[in-house]
Amino acid sequence: MTDAPPQNTKAKPESQKKPSKKGRGGMIVLEPVAGTRDFIPSDMRYRAWLFSKFHAVAKKYGFEEYDAPILESEELYKRKAGEEITQQMYNFTDKSEQQVALRPEMTPSLARLILSQGKSLLMPVKWYSIPQCWRYETTTRGRKREHYQWNMDIWGVPNVSAEAELLAAICEFFKLVGLTSQEVGIKISSRKVLETVMKGLNISSEQFAPACVIVDKLDKLQKEDVVQQLSILGISEESSLELISIMQIKDIDELSQKIGEESVAELRQLFDLVKGYGVAEYLRFDASIVRGLSYYTGVVFEAFSISRNSELSRAICGGGRYDRILTTYGAKQDTPACGFGFGDVVILEILRDLNKIPKEVSRHVVNDLVVPFNEDLRPQACKVVTMLRDAGIPAEVYLPKTKKIANTFSYAERIDADRVIMIAPDEWNAGEVKVKYMKLQPKGVGEEEKNTVGVQFAVKVDDLLNFVIPEEEMKQYERR
Amino acid sequence: MTDAPPQNTKAKPESQKKPSKKGRGGMIVLEPVAGTRDFIPSDMRYRAWLFSKFHAVAKKYGFEEYDAPILESEELYKRKAGEEITQQMYNFTDKSEQQVALRPEMTPSLARLILSQGKSLLMPVKWYSIPQCWRYETTTRGRKREHYQWNMDIWGVPNVSAEAELLAAICEFFKLVGLTSQEVGIKISSRKVLETVMKGLNISSEQFAPACVIVDKLDKLQKEDVVQQLSILGISEESSLELISIMQIKDIDELSQKIGEESVAELRQLFDLVKGYGVAEYLRFDASIVRGLSYYTGVVFEAFSISRNSELSRAICGGGRYDRILTTYGAKQDTPACGFGFGDVVILEILRDLNKIPKEVSRHVVNDLVVPFNEDLRPQACKVVTMLRDAGIPAEVYLPKTKKIANTFSYAERIDADRVIMIAPDEWNAGEVKVKYMKLQPKGVGEEEKNTVGVQFAVKVDDLLNFVIPEEEMKQYERR
Repeated sequence: MTDAPPQNTKAKPESQKKPSKKGRGGMIVLEPVAGTRDFIPSDMRYRAWLFSKFHAVAKKYGFEEYDAPILESEELYKRKAGEEITQQMYNFTDKSEQQVALRPEMTPSLARLILSQGKSLLMPVKWYSIPQCWRYETTTRGRKREHYQWNMDIWGVPNVSAEAELLAAICEFFKLVGLTSQEVGIKISSRKVLETVMKGLNISSEQFAPACVIVDKLDKLQKEDVVQQLSILGISEESSLELISIMQIKDIDELSQKIGEESVAELRQLFDLVKGYGVAEYLRFDASIVRGLSYYTGVVFEAFSISRNSELSRAICGGGRYDRILTTYGAKQDTPACGFGFGDVVILEILRDLNKIPKEVSRHVVNDLVVPFNEDLRPQACKVVTMLRDAGIPAEVYLPKTKKIANTFSYAERIDADRVIMIAPDEWNAGEVKVKYMKLQPKGVGEEEKNTVGVQFAVKVDDLLNFVIPEEEMKQYERR
Repeated sequence: MTDAPPQNTKAKPESQKKPSKKGRGGMIVLEPVAGTRDFIPSDMRYRAWLFSKFHAVAKKYGFEEYDAPILESEELYKRKAGEEITQQMYNFTDKSEQQVALRPEMTPSLARLILSQGKSLLMPVKWYSIPQCWRYETTTRGRKREHYQWNMDIWGVPNVSAEAELLAAICEFFKLVGLTSQEVGIKISSRKVLETVMKGLNISSEQFAPACVIVDKLDKLQKEDVVQQLSILGISEESSLELISIMQIKDIDELSQKIGEESVAELRQLFDLVKGYGVAEYLRFDASIVRGLSYYTGVVFEAFSISRNSELSRAICGGGRYDRILTTYGAKQDTPACGFGFGDVVILEILRDLNKIPKEVSRHVVNDLVVPFNEDLRPQACKVVTMLRDAGIPAEVYLPKTKKIANTFSYAERIDADRVIMIAPDEWNAGEVKVKYMKLQPKGVGEEEKNTVGVQFAVKVDDLLNFVIPEEEMKQYERR
């Protein structure tokens, strides 16, 4: 439920740095389709790590995972409020003349699922998903056309206990990845506040949703342009300026004085609840938060990074309450709902920038490389690697034919393996393997010998899983 | 690399059983796009469980995860061998007149990624992915248009050590989900066998790939139809019948006598290696295995279910060696490669049918339901649920307003919670909560009292995490 995929900024994943020839000399185009990302393993590790945190938080908070097809009927997204997300749809006509779209967001699919379950569904429902979402822009400003978005939604709860649970889950994620309230925060307001203000300014309820979409652009557009766009809706300059002025308020007491305590009571209750969850330090009231989607009806929120780096000032995630979505889809009755969308791009940039990603994530771990001296011994090597893997040790068998044993050592160094386990004819017949510790060397070797690879032991195959270098012997060695 | 998504058979996921009105009375269409699947949590749990096994095996075998966009340029799939997979592409023209397709298979994307990395890539490479793959059929035989497919590939290894590693990984998966060699197996052959046979029959190398695509249909088409299709390629009836007859061979020695030991040496080596991995019981030679994709060049294999249920006789997974794919994409040099694709649909049907899916998978586990007596006590309930969650206990806070405490008990029963933890005013002020064990009752209660819910204790908030019912006291209770 955040906006469409964010701009592609400086921190490009590795796979996109490489220039490639486009369709030259009969070669296929090596780049992915415009605006999309490849994930080679060095990129994928970060995505998988991030998703594992999303899953962990969702599970801890008792949300159940769901999914829907990436392709949906276009009608699901047809709204008339002028939102960017519906204007930039990746839609097309399929072979049976159906109007379909690569989903721009997950909420409409979720609403469809909830509707299709009907009364069989026990409310409240807490569901989550990590869908890929798409948009199509004709401009070529290096903006991406897809991103992944963690969605968490609660259906069937009309009170702000639901928003509090969602906000607590977001803060739980922040804590899990080591982001403090000095580094990130969540701004909260409510469309009900704006609704009260607009009512006071005689702005009609039909104008409400499109007006929200317009005032949401205040951080991107000049104030005059926003006033001008509101005037197209028939809202006077005076009303617009008053609305914009109230949106500057960042203190609930001040807002209460302006529009009455009744309109802010729910927000106060929400702030009480997040204190209960122990995450109040991340949250603050900010009347400028509106969100750019037309379906929001109540509390809205947006997480942001507190950083001097303006690149990172974009929203990390956003969400809110959307209590009337089912009747817009033709249902006879609405079901209260709220949720958030949390994209993969901005958060990964922030985590990289603040050095929060554990070093292990960047590395494919191989502990042991098992090397047969020749092809006749390969079945034995397969046996040994299986034994190691069954014991939970990350182990590889050297797959190419072993031509020179030295080649296998340099390969082991390149994959950063700790040990090479050699299956040699005489040793194997004696029930032994050679184990070379690649990262050790005898103490006090001369500089010219520094490149000598590793320290080697003969180990009984049956003892391999429990083998450690005897402490006394270990004193002779040091790390290379 | 298996065929396109399989037929939808009897075991429909829950979300598809529900009939829904199509677009009646202004209602949106509740069904997903034709041929696609929704995954509500009761379906998603099975998918997530299956994928977790795919991931576990891939990690154990040291494969690194990658991904590519679901949308690819259509040219990546343009081959002329008459394969079903390229004839049934889900392709369209996008808004900038690009011919794109929802990927029918992952191998071409993988080849593109490998090519784009160029010489920076350290070989051998072992990569895996679980992409969603698409096809478009105009027929309406209830066939699905998408499926997920676990792909594992090894690049840079010309010898059968790579095939052995892949086959061992597949068998590892079978073991992990409890499928024995009495229940599933893998049939193995090599295109090199067919190549030798066809050479002997004077079938040209240009005819080879399309001939393979045709003879692969032997289990679906009548023998006469295969012969007829081969005749279009210019292959005589006599040659075709001889080819088909050799394809009936299921014994390597017999084949060796027919076509010479040299052509089967590699297969023998492969069977030696899988013995090393300890998985030989799952594997058997079968010359009828060809696979329906044109790019295979060597060993090909197909896993199947050994079952009297003909519904389940379809291929579970398939794969093989494709050493010449890069030059078909315009590269100057080839890199040896092999891999497999393993779809999500057939295997889940088999696992359901054979009762191999653990019961826990079907259930969303909630241990504790925390209930505030009134809204004033909700922040305290949030605090308690956070304490429980932080301790790793699956806990929920009752999100709706608590109107009658009895309602919360019946809700707890419906979600199958073990305990309800009540935050009541007097108890909370005394530092206590009420803990009701929903699944216990006093021993010897009369039949008419059987519906009395649970057994209740007062517990200090500070002791809640360590609270167990005293053994002596427990003797008074029994499970309801």
